[in-house]
Amino acid sequence: MRWIRYRQDDTVVYGILEGEYVSEISGTPFTQHKVTGKKFPLAKVKLEVPVVPQTFYCVGLNYVDHIKDPSRIPSKPDIGYRANNALIAHNVPVVIPSDARTIHYEGELVVVIGRQAKNISEEDALQYVLGYTIGNDVSERNWQREDRTLWRAKNSDTFKPMGPWIETELNLEGLTTTVRVNDVVTSKFATNNMLFGVAQFISAMTKYLTLYPGDVIWMGTDGHSPDLAPGDVVEVEISGIGTLRNKFSHDNAKPQ
Amino acid sequence: MRWIRYRQDDTVVYGILEGEYVSEISGTPFTQHKVTGKKFPLAKVKLEVPVVPQTFYCVGLNYVDHIKDPSRIPSKPDIGYRANNALIAHNVPVVIPSDARTIHYEGELVVVIGRQAKNISEEDALQYVLGYTIGNDVSERNWQREDRTLWRAKNSDTFKPMGPWIETELNLEGLTTTVRVNDVVTSKFATNNMLFGVAQFISAMTKYLTLYPGDVIWMGTDGHSPDLAPGDVVEVEISGIGTLRNKFSHDNAKPQ
Repeated sequence: MRWIRYRQDDTVVYGILEGEYVSEISGTPFTQHKVTGKKFPLAKVKLEVPVVPQTFYCVGLNYVDHIKDPSRIPSKPDIGYRANNALIAHNVPVVIPSDARTIHYEGELVVVIGRQAKNISEEDALQYVLGYTIGNDVSERNWQREDRTLWRAKNSDTFKPMGPWIETELNLEGLTTTVRVNDVVTSKFATNNMLFGVAQFISAMTKYLTLYPGDVIWMGTDGHSPDLAPGDVVEVEISGIGTLRNKFSHDNAKPQ
Repeated sequence: MRWIRYRQDDTVVYGILEGEYVSEISGTPFTQHKVTGKKFPLAKVKLEVPVVPQTFYCVGLNYVDHIKDPSRIPSKPDIGYRANNALIAHNVPVVIPSDARTIHYEGELVVVIGRQAKNISEEDALQYVLGYTIGNDVSERNWQREDRTLWRAKNSDTFKPMGPWIETELNLEGLTTTVRVNDVVTSKFATNNMLFGVAQFISAMTKYLTLYPGDVIWMGTDGHSPDLAPGDVVEVEISGIGTLRNKFSHDNAKPQ
């Protein structure tokens, strides 16, 4: 099943995507809900990020080929964070700050938590997952190297595209992540070729913290991005989920 | 004015604290609101954290005496993050994980953002602040040193006490932060003796990101904590705001 979140006049609602049509629901995937009976063509609704998490988790380093310095390959599943201010939906432009120099994409599998979870075994972990979506962990590499934290390198406004929807039926084995820039394939990797998998992370994390419905875990990326420029269109496709598409644009804002 | 957030039967509501009484309001400090006319004694209401932020910012290193290695003194205001799962209210116990070894407090001034802010000058920055509360950035020092991220060192469940309320009338000059363990003063410092102040952080951050109503910025701590043990009661007092009090306890949970 595919959950989508979209804007309807002035409110944001959830729906179930069936083919090219959206069935509106009342409630959310994380609470009681029912189909209202209203249907809309997908092409007519404005997609929002599929969820705004209470806590936004992100693995960072989780694929060997992405890590240039072998001494930095993690020995255990230490989770990191990203920031909600940076989230944007499918088809919303990524705005490159005027002083950014080296902008890269990172195509990532995103886990959406469905039920409250604490002290969960690896064996039981996937029962706490509602479904999966796609993230693009946009990064400015100079700030990533030079700043004390990842705040503007990874969390400048619009640097976290997520979507287009949540797919609840997904076998993690055999998936492929494909990234295209302006329709040319620039990265392709086995989505599940992770150092530490989804179940391992959920089990390790919930030894110390409670995961809540709607929390997201971005699972990291493989390979390397070319340098991106304003005008580029980046598509991150994960087989079985769909394609997250965002254009990169100049920052035309005038500082006050 | 003091905003408090508290549980009333099954719902969480805001009120205005006047002396020892709470005037209930409908709405929130961040939206339209009005006094309902209901009043309760402060002693009878169960306090909640004064806000659950969309993004939880934390400076980390911001006072010279807290930084043991002078080469780590920051040269610019790079903001960091903490995680909502870890938030607890005034008087709620901090639960020390069974394998934690060195637990410290960090008493911090917390800025609560009142209005959406982007590209704000230092001169205008404080106009975007609703008020101030108090945070205790509880830390496990071995995990902080050894893990790749601060996830369990700083963000284990219950590691982020915040409260007791939001004070809107506060002159940042001349404030003192005092920390007591079991009624003995163990830290005392000038709250505003920061490397980078509130206005500097808001201006620097909003060059790249949008601050939203309810976002919080924890401003860092000075000095050093003694090692804490189960049974200790830690009080963080900031003059003009109040006192945040939390007992530290054993973890008695049985893993599943």
